[in-house]
Parts: sequence; C-alpha cells; structure tokens
Amino acid sequence: MRIAFVGLGNMGGPMAANLAKAGHHVSAYDMSKAAIERVVGSGAHAAASATAAAADAEVVVTMLPAGQHVREIYLAGEGLLKTVKPGTLCIDSSTIDVTTARDVYAAAKAARVDFLDAPVSGGVGGAAAGTLTFMVGGDTPAFDRAKPILEKMGKNIFHAGGAGNGQAAKICNNMLLAISMIGTCEAFVLAEKLGLDHETLFKISSTASGQCWSLTSYCPVPGPVPASPANRGYQPGFTAAMMLKDLKLAQAAAQTAGAATPLGAQATALYSMFDAAGAGARDFSGIIQLLRGQPQA
Amino acid sequence: MRIAFVGLGNMGGPMAANLAKAGHHVSAYDMSKAAIERVVGSGAHAAASATAAAADAEVVVTMLPAGQHVREIYLAGEGLLKTVKPGTLCIDSSTIDVTTARDVYAAAKAARVDFLDAPVSGGVGGAAAGTLTFMVGGDTPAFDRAKPILEKMGKNIFHAGGAGNGQAAKICNNMLLAISMIGTCEAFVLAEKLGLDHETLFKISSTASGQCWSLTSYCPVPGPVPASPANRGYQPGFTAAMMLKDLKLAQAAAQTAGAATPLGAQATALYSMFDAAGAGARDFSGIIQLLRGQPQA
Amino acid sequence: MRIAFVGLGNMGGPMAANLAKAGHHVSAYDMSKAAIERVVGSGAHAAASATAAAADAEVVVTMLPAGQHVREIYLAGEGLLKTVKPGTLCIDSSTIDVTTARDVYAAAKAARVDFLDAPVSGGVGGAAAGTLTFMVGGDTPAFDRAKPILEKMGKNIFHAGGAGNGQAAKICNNMLLAISMIGTCEAFVLAEKLGLDHETLFKISSTASGQCWSLTSYCPVPGPVPASPANRGYQPGFTAAMMLKDLKLAQAAAQTAGAATPLGAQATALYSMFDAAGAGARDFSGIIQLLRGQPQA
Amino acid sequence: MRIAFVGLGNMGGPMAANLAKAGHHVSAYDMSKAAIERVVGSGAHAAASATAAAADAEVVVTMLPAGQHVREIYLAGEGLLKTVKPGTLCIDSSTIDVTTARDVYAAAKAARVDFLDAPVSGGVGGAAAGTLTFMVGGDTPAFDRAKPILEKMGKNIFHAGGAGNGQAAKICNNMLLAISMIGTCEAFVLAEKLGLDHETLFKISSTASGQCWSLTSYCPVPGPVPASPANRGYQPGFTAAMMLKDLKLAQAAAQTAGAATPLGAQATALYSMFDAAGAGARDFSGIIQLLRGQPQA
Repeated sequence: MRIAFVGLGNMGGPMAANLAKAGHHVSAYDMSKAAIERVVGSGAHAAASATAAAADAEVVVTMLPAGQHVREIYLAGEGLLKTVKPGTLCIDSSTIDVTTARDVYAAAKAARVDFLDAPVSGGVGGAAAGTLTFMVGGDTPAFDRAKPILEKMGKNIFHAGGAGNGQAAKICNNMLLAISMIGTCEAFVLAEKLGLDHETLFKISSTASGQCWSLTSYCPVPGPVPASPANRGYQPGFTAAMMLKDLKLAQAAAQTAGAATPLGAQATALYSMFDAAGAGARDFSGIIQLLRGQPQA
Repeated sequence: MRIAFVGLGNMGGPMAANLAKAGHHVSAYDMSKAAIERVVGSGAHAAASATAAAADAEVVVTMLPAGQHVREIYLAGEGLLKTVKPGTLCIDSSTIDVTTARDVYAAAKAARVDFLDAPVSGGVGGAAAGTLTFMVGGDTPAFDRAKPILEKMGKNIFHAGGAGNGQAAKICNNMLLAISMIGTCEAFVLAEKLGLDHETLFKISSTASGQCWSLTSYCPVPGPVPASPANRGYQPGFTAAMMLKDLKLAQAAAQTAGAATPLGAQATALYSMFDAAGAGARDFSGIIQLLRGQPQA
Repeated sequence: MRIAFVGLGNMGGPMAANLAKAGHHVSAYDMSKAAIERVVGSGAHAAASATAAAADAEVVVTMLPAGQHVREIYLAGEGLLKTVKPGTLCIDSSTIDVTTARDVYAAAKAARVDFLDAPVSGGVGGAAAGTLTFMVGGDTPAFDRAKPILEKMGKNIFHAGGAGNGQAAKICNNMLLAISMIGTCEAFVLAEKLGLDHETLFKISSTASGQCWSLTSYCPVPGPVPASPANRGYQPGFTAAMMLKDLKLAQAAAQTAGAATPLGAQATALYSMFDAAGAGARDFSGIIQLLRGQPQA
Repeated sequence: MRIAFVGLGNMGGPMAANLAKAGHHVSAYDMSKAAIERVVGSGAHAAASATAAAADAEVVVTMLPAGQHVREIYLAGEGLLKTVKPGTLCIDSSTIDVTTARDVYAAAKAARVDFLDAPVSGGVGGAAAGTLTFMVGGDTPAFDRAKPILEKMGKNIFHAGGAGNGQAAKICNNMLLAISMIGTCEAFVLAEKLGLDHETLFKISSTASGQCWSLTSYCPVPGPVPASPANRGYQPGFTAAMMLKDLKLAQAAAQTAGAATPLGAQATALYSMFDAAGAGARDFSGIIQLLRGQPQA
C-alpha cells in the first residue's frame, strides 16, 4: 500500500520504519533532513514535502507535536485535505486536543476524506518494537481500514468511538496514570519515613487494594520491578515533559467541558514544578524526587 | 487455644465467630451486650469484662475504634498488660496511629508480653468470609505464633516488619487506594463530558497504564465490574467515613514524620467534604458523585 | 465623541449608558433587541449591526463573553478591523485569554488601528455606578487617548503595559482573589469547629497577617462586613460562574506559559465542583458552603 | 511583680528581657545555660530549674517548642501545677495544639490555678521590640490580670475566648496567611511568564480585590515593599519551618474537628516539599522559589 508518513521524530521515525519493513511503500517527510535519512535507511522513500509525500498516497499518517501543527498541515491553504484524493484514509497519531481532532475530522468529512485520531501509548520503546497501543476515534469503516496498518506498528488497537474519542481516551488514561504514579510515590515516601521498606510495601500493595500499573509494572523506586526506570536513574521511558503535555491537554479539556478534576489539576501543578526544576527530560516516575525535595537527584 | 477477643463490632464480631468456629475457646467481650450475644450464638463464651476475658488467655485479640481506646485498654491502671501473664500473645487488629502501636509494643515488651499490630483490609465481607488481609508489625517469633490464628480469620497474612509497621503498611496502602480511586473517578467524569462512554474507557485503561485495583476490581461506575458498589447505589463495601479515618491517620503520620503527600492531603480534604455533605456512610467509591456536584445522589 | 458600543449585557449595558450620559454620541449594538432598547432609554442610539455601529465611530468599545467572540467580531471577513478607519481607537473590555488579546492587537496594528485590552473589575454594581477598575494593555498613546473615556465608566484606570497585559493583570489579580477567598472561608470553617466565633476571628485577623480584601471588604460569613453578600444569602455581587471563568483563563495562561500555580489549580477545581452542584449563580464567596458540604444552602 | 519565665529561646529570651526591663523581678530558666546568661545580662535572675523559678512566682510565663513540652512541664509528676500556689497566673505563649491547651487549662482549673494560652505572632523582631501580637484563650478575669504584663511584651493583645481559643485564632490566622502568601507568589510567577512586571501587578492588586497582607506588607518579590525579606535573599523574618509547624497544627486540628481545608492541606504539602528541599531556615515568603523550581536559590 502507498503510505505517506509525515513527522519522523523519536516516535514517528520508528513507526514509519515498521511500516516500510512490513512491505508498504512509505513516502516519508520531516522538516529535519537527518530524520528523513534515518527512515530511508529502514526502507522508506524520501519526499520533498508533506504535499509531495501525500500526493498519490492511499493512506496518510501524521505524527506531530501539537494541535496547531495538525491544524496547519491538514487545514491550511495548501493543506493535506486539499492535496489528497477523496477516499484517502488519514490517520493522525499525534497527541493533541480533542477540539482540534474533531475540527479536522469535520473538515475531512466535508472533503470526503476518512480521518481518524489515533494517539498512542508505549513510548519510544514501543514505537521501535512495534508494540504501541493505539486509541482510535472516528467512523467504524475507517477504523476497519486502518486496523491492519496500525497492527504493523502496535499490539493493542482500540476503537474508542467517534471523532476525538481516541484523544479523549488517551488523556483520561494518562491523567489517571499521572495521579496513580504520584500516589505510588507518596506511599513509598511515607513508608520510608515510617521505617517500612520498599520491598515490603511493594509485596503487600501489589496484591492488595493499592495495586496499580505504576506500582506493579513501572515501580518508581529501584528494586521491586527490575525493568522500571527507577533502576537506571530515571532515564526515560516516558519523560516528565511528555506527561506534563498530556496533563495540560487533560486540564484544557476538563475546563472546556466543565469537569472537576482536583487531583488531575494538582498532578499538573506538580509536574509543572518538576519541569521548572529542570527535570523535564527525566522519566515521569522520577517525580518521587520532587516529593523528597531533590527533583534532580 | 484459649483466646480472649475484645471489641465485637461489625468487624470484630465475625472475626471472633470465625475463631470460635475453628475450634478455639473464645472469651468475648464488648461494651454492647447485644454484640456479645451475637458471637455467643456462634460458639464464643461471654466475658464480663476485658480483664475477665483476658485473665487466663494464651492469646488476646483486640479490635477497637481508635488509638485512644487501644492505649486505654492495654496501658491504663487496670489495663490488659497488668492482667495477662508474661508470654501471652496480644494481637491488636484495630487500625490506629503508628505511634500508639509502637508505644504499646514497648510497654508490652517491658512486661514480657508479645504484642503485634495487625490491622486488616477486606471490610465486613472479608471479616465474615474469613478472607481478610492482615498487615502485621512486630517481632518475628510473635508473628510466627500468630500466623495460624490469623489464618482462621484471613487469607493473606503479611509480616511488614517491626512494631508499628502493620499500621504503616495499612495507611500507605489505603492512601494510595484513595488517590487511585479519586483518580479513576476523575477519569470517568472527564470521559463522560468528552463523550467517551464508561465501558470503552474501562476496556482501554484496564489493559493500559491507567490500570489500578480501583478501576478493575472496584469500578466506581455501574457496569464494568458487576460486583462493585456502584452497581448497588454505593452501598458499602468500605465506607467513605472509614476511608476518611485512614486518610487522617496517614496525614497525621506524614506530618509527624515529615513526608510531603500532596495528593494524599487533597484526597483527605475531598473525603472530608464528602463526609460533611452527609455521605460518610456510603461506599468510598461514591466520591465520584462529589465531583459531579451531587454527593448524595 | 462618536463611540460605538458592542455588547450590552449586564456589564456592557450600564457602561454604554454611562458614556451616553457623559455626553458622547453612542451607537449601541447587541444581538438582543431588548438590550439595545435599554441603553436607548439612557440616551444611546440603536445600531442595526456591529458594523453599522462602528462605521463612522472614532472609538469602538466591545464587551463580549469570550475570546472566540472577540476574535470573530474583529478578525472575521466582515470584522471591525475591515470596517473602521485607520486611526480608530478600539477598546475591548471583555475578559478573555491573553493570546487572543495579543493576536487582535497585532492584526489591528497591521491595519493601523489602535487596540487596547481593557478588562474590568467591580461587577454589575461598579458598572452602574461608573466605579469600575480598568486594567489596560496596549501602547501608551492609545492608553492616553482612552483614559478620559474610561474615566466616564470607572474610577481606577491602570496601564498594565503592552498588549495583553490588561488581561494578564486581571487574571493574576482574580486568581489571587479566589485563593484568598477560599483561604478565608477555610479559616472561618476551622474556627467554627474549634469554637472560635466569626466576629473574634475577624477582629484578630483583620489587623494581623491574615488580613486580605476577601476578609475585610467582602467577608464570606454574615456579620463582620454588613455590605458583603454573605449577609443576603450569597446573592451576587460577583458570581461563582464568573470567577470560574476567570480561573479557567488563568489556568489556560499558566499552562501555556509554563507557570506552576498549585493553589490556583485547586481553586479552579473547587469552583468547578461548586458550579456542578448548581451554585454557579451565587456569589463567589458562597463557596464556604461547599466546604461545609452544603453548596446550595 | 515576681515572674517566672521558662523557655528562653529566640522568642522567649527577648520576651523575658522586656519583662525585666519593665521592672518586674524575673526568674528565668532554660535548659541552655547560655540562654539563661543572655537574659541575666538584661536584668533577669537565673533559676536552677523550672520548679525553682516558679516556686514563689505570682505569674509564670512559658515559651516552649511543642505541646508535649507544655504537657510535661505543667502536668508531669513534679510539674508546675504541683509547684505553684493556688491563684498563680500561668501564661503559656508556646504555639501548640488546641487539645493540649485545653487539657492543661482543665488541670490548672482543678488546681485553682489561672491558665491562659497566649501564642504570639510578630517573630523575633517583634519579640525584641516588644511589639508582638498576643492571641489569648482562657477566662476573662485571668485575661484581665495578664493584660498589663502582656503589654510589656506586645502591642496588640486579643482575648479570643475560652481556653484553647488563643491557639485556635493563631492557627486559623496563620493558615490563611500561608494560603494568601502562596497565592501571592503564584500571581507573581504567572505575571512574570505573561510579561507583566512585578511593580505593575503590585500597583494594581494592592488597590484591588487581590489585596492582602502578604502582598502589601510582606511582598515575596524584591522591590515593591522595601522591608520585606525578598529584598535580602529571603533571610527570615518568619521561617518556612515555623510556618510548616503552624500549618501542621492547623491540619491536625482540622482533622480532629472535621473541617475540610483543601488549600490549607495543599499549603502544608508545599511547605513540606520546600522544607525537604533544605529551605526550612529561609523566610516563608521564599516559597516563590519552589514554584520556580529553585527552592534554594
């Protein structure tokens, strides 16, 4: 299949490479030439622009930093919705605000283009290994067309409902993740101060009502879960800056929609302080160090 | 074995009954005669006072509302530590502050009495079914003596370390539980406002990084987990008032010990508002209604 | 002077009336005919559209609900910036996001139109009495032109710096106001529970380090400040819904700009719960009832 | 008058000195000999113990770190209530928990001793200058006896009601102070990020609804209030560690009494993080640096 891939950063690069390795003809574009060269090395074809990449594509995948970029690349004067043929399938895997996702869907529908919002979780490791989780919003026929393609890049492919619901699912999940991660960190910090060691709290809570993924799969203290970033000095993994971005999207959505999220708001403030302390590039589980007063230790 | 059991409320009553059913000779005391009669109906023997119950016991179990009661019953002039013989094993299953647990342990040690703090989780249902989780602090030989007795009342018996560590483990776990429960509620409330339905968010997050016991075993919205209190109008289960009690213990411990627990502090304030709204007797997962502005609905 | 006034709601109506009473020729427009008729009764002239009102105006004043309306009325195809002559002074007194204010300023500058953001505080009472406070962002010559006009509607006219700074000043001030109001409410609620009466706490804190405008000019309990809304069942004054709007603007600005505002975030969540409980139309000092678990009492 | 003074630290020392300078016969005791010598240099007389100091005193003043010390010195076997004659006036100026203050009052009453809780605000500077504020709880006749003595050490002497109400007033005021200080810091940090300078925000908010003592008398950024600690690198003034102590007392009281104080809880967590970052000895207005991610800068 002829696939255009636009946005070849830490996530988009390996995703495009996986599509090429799966035998698709991938026309790849990024503002960085080095990024294009890397995916050409994995079998993709360099394109001179997003428009050129998309010109005769059956499927377009975009992986961009923020809503404004998605809005621009699809909706601007020379945007992709003007370029692609009716019937093209456009998959936006960027993590962006729900409103933009729904606006672009509406514009695409008017142009008889299938548009899906399909943000991912699983980080750089999942992108490289092809084990990402995709949360997809949009029409069912479009989802059915997209699924075999997404399966080349990911392991769990969820249809979350209509347009924007992929983004909604991602921010709801990641807000919950941030809250349970900070909660896990607070439990460990309190345990330390009370003379209860990490391994014992882990052993108990991992089989009790405090169990959560942040504890049992991504433990923020070294020891209990050997693969977790805590064992390698909080090298990411999933950076605190990326978590902060998702939390801001969740807060913006909550405030627009009128949902009260007191712990989500507090988690945002805490990651904002952590980021201000210069720790944005560390794994998001490193926030335990903020609670200890040593954000960069 | 001759066991004295003091405190026969919603939890203590069925626990004492389970010990009697297991063939132990249980001398039972409570300030309420009705409570004594109930456990006599299950094979226990009525005692006229805590002292009388404990007089010739090999093991004493106490299940009391708060630290002040534990302090009083063990340490006061005519307290149990004056009554029991050296070598007696005392197990306090009350949920109380760490400081009191450690103070009573020290006084017991001076009297050559084995003292364990052994708070439970699992609620009234677990007490009746004998499937409680015990988190036990104290010396290893005492723990080894206690284990076969605790196994008559519970399923998971954890040795959490030295004196007070049973209480420490419980408040760390339950603080994390409260935080992840509120986080789960916030995720559902945000999802609703964004048009993402409960079942879909459940399906996605239960297999993703937002997974937690509050979501997958005790889901605060009706539907996804049929046994959860949300399906029966938030009838407890584990009441909001009990959760608030544990959160206050956690905050007191955090402040004494010097641990920063911003989300734990916020969870305490939220359960305090929920309780002030008259909802303390509802299941703690009902806090989702506070976020919706309808605490008693 | 020929002044166009667009947006004649609870605030805009009396502001336009004050300009007419001061002898200006005011062309007034609103989507509601009733609103237009009210200000015609005060000496203004009805206009058939915003464009018609502004056609030959020397000064345009707009008072609209949100950033999207301001963006639309100034920037859209037939927008005011296309209508007015170069050199016209446009004063937007809406409370909106900083980004929109700066975008419209830039577009106005390109059209050689003087644009000021000039949000107000002082509420409906201040609008009627002509005692509003104006916080003005934009170029100094434009501010100097505007000042005599603003003085017909307000008492304190502050130049807060370049474009957008009027909005910035307003959200910074109102975020601080919300925080100190909730803090004042918490102090009273704690005092009640400890047996310290309202008058005594007021007497002490009003002369001590807890002094703040929320306490000494707008006291959230009845008694100490007779004119405060607490004495009339929390009839506004300044509604909780309006405060929530300002808090959301502050949070959006904080998240875009990268500022950590933990108490501002929490205040937003609390007003959001208060609003969800159906209390948005009450005075913002009524939030003390949320802390007491009785948001609508 | 013969006055015993026990506890001669940073606060107690200068307070005792002021009583001696006013012509009272002051018997002074502290566990530190150096502390005793300092006040002897100001005209007080050294005592060998608290008991010796109090033996023939008409008035006893205590200034101790925490509730446990007050409980011990008054109530223990050889405590002051056993030492002093009936009719003695005991004034405890320590900042302690309400419960202890009320317990000691009750024991004193039983011994026919007049007991007042009389915590202060105003810091080391106010202690030296004799300009402290006293918040006094206890019986009116005792308050009337104490007033002329307190006026030798302070400027504002408030009778806050019955026993414990001095402590209640102090923690309510200081909780509000901490909240409005953090709110002020958040407003400045947000203003900075939006390009609104400190002086302008100060000029506007100091005359508007955001006005508070933290802003107008103790401004947390250098410039607007020349005497504030921000102008001397956050040298105290009133340390963050002392504020944290008061916030913990307020939280303990709120949790015991059942008051919901969400911002008070959050302020406690923030000062706890600030303290954990090693900044406890800095002025409490330095918390603005935590928000900026640089707690010790």
